[in-house]
Amino acid sequence: MQDTHTLPEWVFRDCPVMSLPDRDAALQRQAELTKPAGSLGRLETLAVELAGLQHIERPKAARVPIIIFAGDHGIAAQGVSAYPQQVTIAMMANFSAGGAAISVLARELGATLEVIDAGTLAETALPGIVIDKPRRGTRDFSTEEALAPNEVAFAFACGERAVARASSPDLLIFGEMGIGNTTTAAAIAAALLATSPDRLAGSGTGLDPAGRDRKARLIAAALARHGLGAGNAAVERVLCAVGGLEILAMSGAIIAAAQRRIPVLIDGFIVSVAALAAVRLNPSCRPYLIFSHRSAEQGHRLVLDALEARPLLDLDLRLGEGSGAALALPLLRLACALHNGMATFAEAAVPGPA
Amino acid sequence: MQDTHTLPEWVFRDCPVMSLPDRDAALQRQAELTKPAGSLGRLETLAVELAGLQHIERPKAARVPIIIFAGDHGIAAQGVSAYPQQVTIAMMANFSAGGAAISVLARELGATLEVIDAGTLAETALPGIVIDKPRRGTRDFSTEEALAPNEVAFAFACGERAVARASSPDLLIFGEMGIGNTTTAAAIAAALLATSPDRLAGSGTGLDPAGRDRKARLIAAALARHGLGAGNAAVERVLCAVGGLEILAMSGAIIAAAQRRIPVLIDGFIVSVAALAAVRLNPSCRPYLIFSHRSAEQGHRLVLDALEARPLLDLDLRLGEGSGAALALPLLRLACALHNGMATFAEAAVPGPA
Repeated sequence: MQDTHTLPEWVFRDCPVMSLPDRDAALQRQAELTKPAGSLGRLETLAVELAGLQHIERPKAARVPIIIFAGDHGIAAQGVSAYPQQVTIAMMANFSAGGAAISVLARELGATLEVIDAGTLAETALPGIVIDKPRRGTRDFSTEEALAPNEVAFAFACGERAVARASSPDLLIFGEMGIGNTTTAAAIAAALLATSPDRLAGSGTGLDPAGRDRKARLIAAALARHGLGAGNAAVERVLCAVGGLEILAMSGAIIAAAQRRIPVLIDGFIVSVAALAAVRLNPSCRPYLIFSHRSAEQGHRLVLDALEARPLLDLDLRLGEGSGAALALPLLRLACALHNGMATFAEAAVPGPA
Repeated sequence: MQDTHTLPEWVFRDCPVMSLPDRDAALQRQAELTKPAGSLGRLETLAVELAGLQHIERPKAARVPIIIFAGDHGIAAQGVSAYPQQVTIAMMANFSAGGAAISVLARELGATLEVIDAGTLAETALPGIVIDKPRRGTRDFSTEEALAPNEVAFAFACGERAVARASSPDLLIFGEMGIGNTTTAAAIAAALLATSPDRLAGSGTGLDPAGRDRKARLIAAALARHGLGAGNAAVERVLCAVGGLEILAMSGAIIAAAQRRIPVLIDGFIVSVAALAAVRLNPSCRPYLIFSHRSAEQGHRLVLDALEARPLLDLDLRLGEGSGAALALPLLRLACALHNGMATFAEAAVPGPA
């Protein structure tokens, strides 16, 4: 099969395995800290997992760059979003100017924020934004293939370049912006999971029920037209037919991060679909994914189930931009601080269980 | 009824009502921020609620003192805990020395930590710990009344004094420590909710199923002995019969905070039982309670349901010490930062819905 790949060879290279000695040392330490065993619940398992993935007994979540990939979608011409298409570019400017939700969160968390135009309709460079795109927007997948194979490969490489630029991160957060991208994400997920688009298409930024039904029917018709209705198509075929540039850049970034042993804190529906594609292409990246939240977007639950993911938060979020992942970051930081900073029973001279 | 109260008059005084103009102004602002309406889910409602409670359009969660109340329980003599009773005092020292989970969390969150001996067996003052107790430990409620009426009143006053000492808090977190206190809390909740102790008694710090069953039977027998099995006893009767000093201090602190218009971020099972008692005594404090997490302790769900509470986190925590509330604090801080710091559609020149 390898010779039929349109994606570069690195995408399929194995990610390093977890360090069992570091994981076990962390597990042992958790048992010695001054608290009933297991009483910090998922904070304990998070710290132990991070230790194994980062190959250190004392895990870290201090340096966590946030990288936003933006892209436009030909399918937006079919009226699948509550917002006009120029919002993609206007929001890129808002990210960079500091007024968007993710800008505020990055400031509060002391995280750097990089914004990448991975495929918007913008004709020129915007101040403070990295341009790394093979074309302006995707083609309308309701009438033609969204992307050529070399454009899909470009998007993966864009993601890899973004990870290579990040300066010794402990963890990475990827976010997205793109009017129409819940439609693209639902189409990718429906094809990969062989599930009805009706179960994956949600209201996005605010469609009414009739608009949502129309979106689901549009996706179903497009999948049929591209011969993707049966659910047995190769992942790369799906990504050409109904892919999005910012979504595929994130798939590439996820694999590139895991190959460098950097865990990724996964945001909501769209980033989870990028993760699903990444895991289908290269299953060895799965252990590096930490799922931050369960989105209010209806398709997210199915994607999470397919990835056997149990997210940390469930707060009815549906903004995107990496905002849900950013909101979960303090939990990871506090899990590390507890693991590294608490006294042991011996140190504190506290008696253990009777 | 007032003349039959064993509690001081202030406990029953009405808490101020929410500011509707500030709440409405905050709601209006949320609608103008650069995000789809409602897309920040519970973070939006948190910010709006806080604005109403704090009587300001831009809510704050910067200054959040953490106050731990510690107490010992006569019922511990019946072997209801996995840990020996001297752990209460040893952990108080650990809080103050900086080695406990809540000590680490307070440091990371930039919160002050006050530890109050509200009724432990300690015979002398421990360094760095406030003493404010009517007696050393409660009586064993399986054989006699846990507390005399004046001791219950003292505990409420201890909570009120702690709130009065806090220096202009935006919010308060209360936590607890006390070997045996899940048994006391389950007894209080079973009496107030008229529910079988079998549904409220959990494994605490780590009882096995047989130990948990024994704990439930002990509570049921004690409630029958005190005439509290029918579920129609006055709250103050219940608190005398099966109360705990650190729990009642928290009930007093919750009411005192709400009367001063200070919202309280409620921790897990035990603090929620203190909140239940507070709300039963003075329902006007209920709007000031923000529930941080759903504990792994089995009785918590019933107490939350009785309070119509929907907690923010569900992470299998069961440590106590206020640790779950501390872990949820970053969500409140980020909710405030988003509310106060995001640009509006007009400011950012982003087009609204089509």
